[in-house]
Amino acid sequence: MSEKIVKSTGNGINLSMPPMKVAVIGAGLVGSLAALNFARRGHEVHLYEYREDIRTSQLVQGRSINLALSQRGRKALAEVGLEELVLSTAIPMRGRMLHDIKGNRSVVLYDPCTNQCLYSVGRKHLNEILLNAGEKFPNIHYHFDHKLKSANLREGDMVFQHPYTEDCSEATADLIVGCDGAFSSVRQQMAKTLGFNFSQEYIEHGYLELCIPAKNDEFQMPPNYLHIWPRDEFMMIALPNQDKSFTVTLSMPFRVFASIKTPQELVEFFKRYYVDALPLIGEECLIKDFFKSKPQHLVSIKCNPYHYGDKALILGDAAHAMVPYYGQGMNAGMEDCTLFFSILGQPQMTIGKALEQFTETRCKDAHAICDLAMYNYVEMRDLTKRFSFKCRKILDTTLFRYFPTFWVPLYNSVSFTSMPYSKCIANRKWQDELWF
Amino acid sequence: MSEKIVKSTGNGINLSMPPMKVAVIGAGLVGSLAALNFARRGHEVHLYEYREDIRTSQLVQGRSINLALSQRGRKALAEVGLEELVLSTAIPMRGRMLHDIKGNRSVVLYDPCTNQCLYSVGRKHLNEILLNAGEKFPNIHYHFDHKLKSANLREGDMVFQHPYTEDCSEATADLIVGCDGAFSSVRQQMAKTLGFNFSQEYIEHGYLELCIPAKNDEFQMPPNYLHIWPRDEFMMIALPNQDKSFTVTLSMPFRVFASIKTPQELVEFFKRYYVDALPLIGEECLIKDFFKSKPQHLVSIKCNPYHYGDKALILGDAAHAMVPYYGQGMNAGMEDCTLFFSILGQPQMTIGKALEQFTETRCKDAHAICDLAMYNYVEMRDLTKRFSFKCRKILDTTLFRYFPTFWVPLYNSVSFTSMPYSKCIANRKWQDELWF
Repeated sequence: MSEKIVKSTGNGINLSMPPMKVAVIGAGLVGSLAALNFARRGHEVHLYEYREDIRTSQLVQGRSINLALSQRGRKALAEVGLEELVLSTAIPMRGRMLHDIKGNRSVVLYDPCTNQCLYSVGRKHLNEILLNAGEKFPNIHYHFDHKLKSANLREGDMVFQHPYTEDCSEATADLIVGCDGAFSSVRQQMAKTLGFNFSQEYIEHGYLELCIPAKNDEFQMPPNYLHIWPRDEFMMIALPNQDKSFTVTLSMPFRVFASIKTPQELVEFFKRYYVDALPLIGEECLIKDFFKSKPQHLVSIKCNPYHYGDKALILGDAAHAMVPYYGQGMNAGMEDCTLFFSILGQPQMTIGKALEQFTETRCKDAHAICDLAMYNYVEMRDLTKRFSFKCRKILDTTLFRYFPTFWVPLYNSVSFTSMPYSKCIANRKWQDELWF
Repeated sequence: MSEKIVKSTGNGINLSMPPMKVAVIGAGLVGSLAALNFARRGHEVHLYEYREDIRTSQLVQGRSINLALSQRGRKALAEVGLEELVLSTAIPMRGRMLHDIKGNRSVVLYDPCTNQCLYSVGRKHLNEILLNAGEKFPNIHYHFDHKLKSANLREGDMVFQHPYTEDCSEATADLIVGCDGAFSSVRQQMAKTLGFNFSQEYIEHGYLELCIPAKNDEFQMPPNYLHIWPRDEFMMIALPNQDKSFTVTLSMPFRVFASIKTPQELVEFFKRYYVDALPLIGEECLIKDFFKSKPQHLVSIKCNPYHYGDKALILGDAAHAMVPYYGQGMNAGMEDCTLFFSILGQPQMTIGKALEQFTETRCKDAHAICDLAMYNYVEMRDLTKRFSFKCRKILDTTLFRYFPTFWVPLYNSVSFTSMPYSKCIANRKWQDELWF
């Protein structure tokens, strides 16, 4: 490791730390963002990804197609100068549009006072923006088709395997940063060390993606909403895409998926529960998309610590995968970068101290948002339909209008502020105690 | 797999299931008991153990030296005809002997009415009895020095490695039974399958073993008690051994262990907190034993399911390691055998159905005892000192004396009955509601 000391650049980045050789594992949203952040601070970054380069790939593999970007993600993108570029092609969603079982629609705005909104962004598009931005840094080196096979965290040694040729290659780094998702290999290494607390919890619900295509080059539903079909035990949501289609996510217990065996049963099921969505999706497309793939599992992951000595760190889903019902998975992962690099930039900071401080600060907030997402798993399916939920929404919104800094509804503090997640919940608790 | 059908033997064992080739991983207490049970039912058993044969080994490695055997373990031993042999050399403990900070002693009997008691047994001795009993079955094959390196559960393929020579060997089985402890390799394979729920939680306390030797060939304290020194944040216990020594387990936060750096600090610490134990252990031995080894970690593990298809099963600590504060770890592991083999013996049972039913029945009870052990982690350190705890004990005992089938105190139902653990807790809840 070079001992060259680079002084502060005056743009808020403290460069007093000697440059490290950093291996970032996973070139998804969090990995490519982390790589940018390290590169801007003068570190030598090697970004390893087991898939091919998605910028030249035809196939979109795994994971959801679009995502709801909110305040925490925006802030992290702004820090690397990409917020405006991302928002320029994102679709604002100003509220939830609820579809009842008869097909009637009603709107609950996220924030009637200041018009804050979520933004629907395409995962692939956002990832491309982040990877392209990295190309401008000569100190970022891309390694696609590199699957981490094993790692010795103590020594910083890694072995990678090519997914097709199975050729192996070795590498070393001063710091290994696992941004390799819910089934993280880096975390699996950490989990073997004594004192690593860990839980993985699968829920009974799986999900499957469908599509409402554009019609005559127009959206088939109002585009500026997150559409929700709450149905007790199951639910469906839809987010708008740039090409005027909607990506529809159907979420229900695996046993309900399994109970639908024929095209006829599927159409009957949609006529019963999603009558207004059926003609928009189209029977033929529905049948094709539903039966072509299996429903995907959803898992909630918590662990502590997020680091190993002064040698390794996990960020994003690798550290805290959550069920998708608060739309905070990506935002929380990006916020990991905001927090970690703000700690790393403190005067006289060492990498060992920074990793320790990150674990200490981040765990409670990441656990809080995992819990909130699990709670919303119930709320979105069920509570959105209830009268008391609508009352509470109205009350919250009214109070928020008159006392904006004093009364921030939970959803808004999570989605439209950078208040620590654990504080969002603590906040809600005293609100509940005051009023209910 | 041979298709030979053996009919019921009339001794309660249903042998109608075709014999399987069973690989039991781990020849500890639960593994060697499981092997005996499979062998008695006519299956071909291969018992793999990564250590050498403890019967010929000089070195006692890892884990605690003695254990408290209670009803569930006794029942499981009785089922393989070994209860009497084990009890003949075990030391009954009729109650807790509490040592206060001044060195005063008081007794809380476990069961003043029917005189039920715990039995202190040596781990090595008990394991030897189980392994020796297995020698009588030509269908049990021992493989010591075999460390499971990898397993393909779907195919029943395993690769073992010799711990010293690193030579590898392969094996196959119809059923793989992981009795390989808290850090189970079999469970690690299962954990890679979708839908496997898992948590591991380390506690802030570590433990370290000390010794109160015999003096003039006599016990230095009354032998028929489980001795406890409850001290808020830390505590110490002692169990009697056959050789008239006591094994002492000191349990406290790692930071307290770390704060004791010199022999002088150690002696001062014991003078302050364990004044009556100090002369019994002896300063010289205390200093030697305390500084020769690091305090050990304690982990609580829960998972669900306990099986994989009709191919693999985990039992004992591999499935539900718990903190040692209820003395039920070994007893719960042995009870796994009682339950599993009672399911397996049902008419028309298949191995696939038996594994599924075992998971379904056992998880809630194993989770319950893990929770109870964690709760007792607080109680033993703290509550045993409190007045209200003593009152509750007296009230419980009185009610139990007059209404033995109706009012069973929690500790007694856990330790002296085979009531499902989850029911023990449910029972306590209505008792609490009635009286407090």
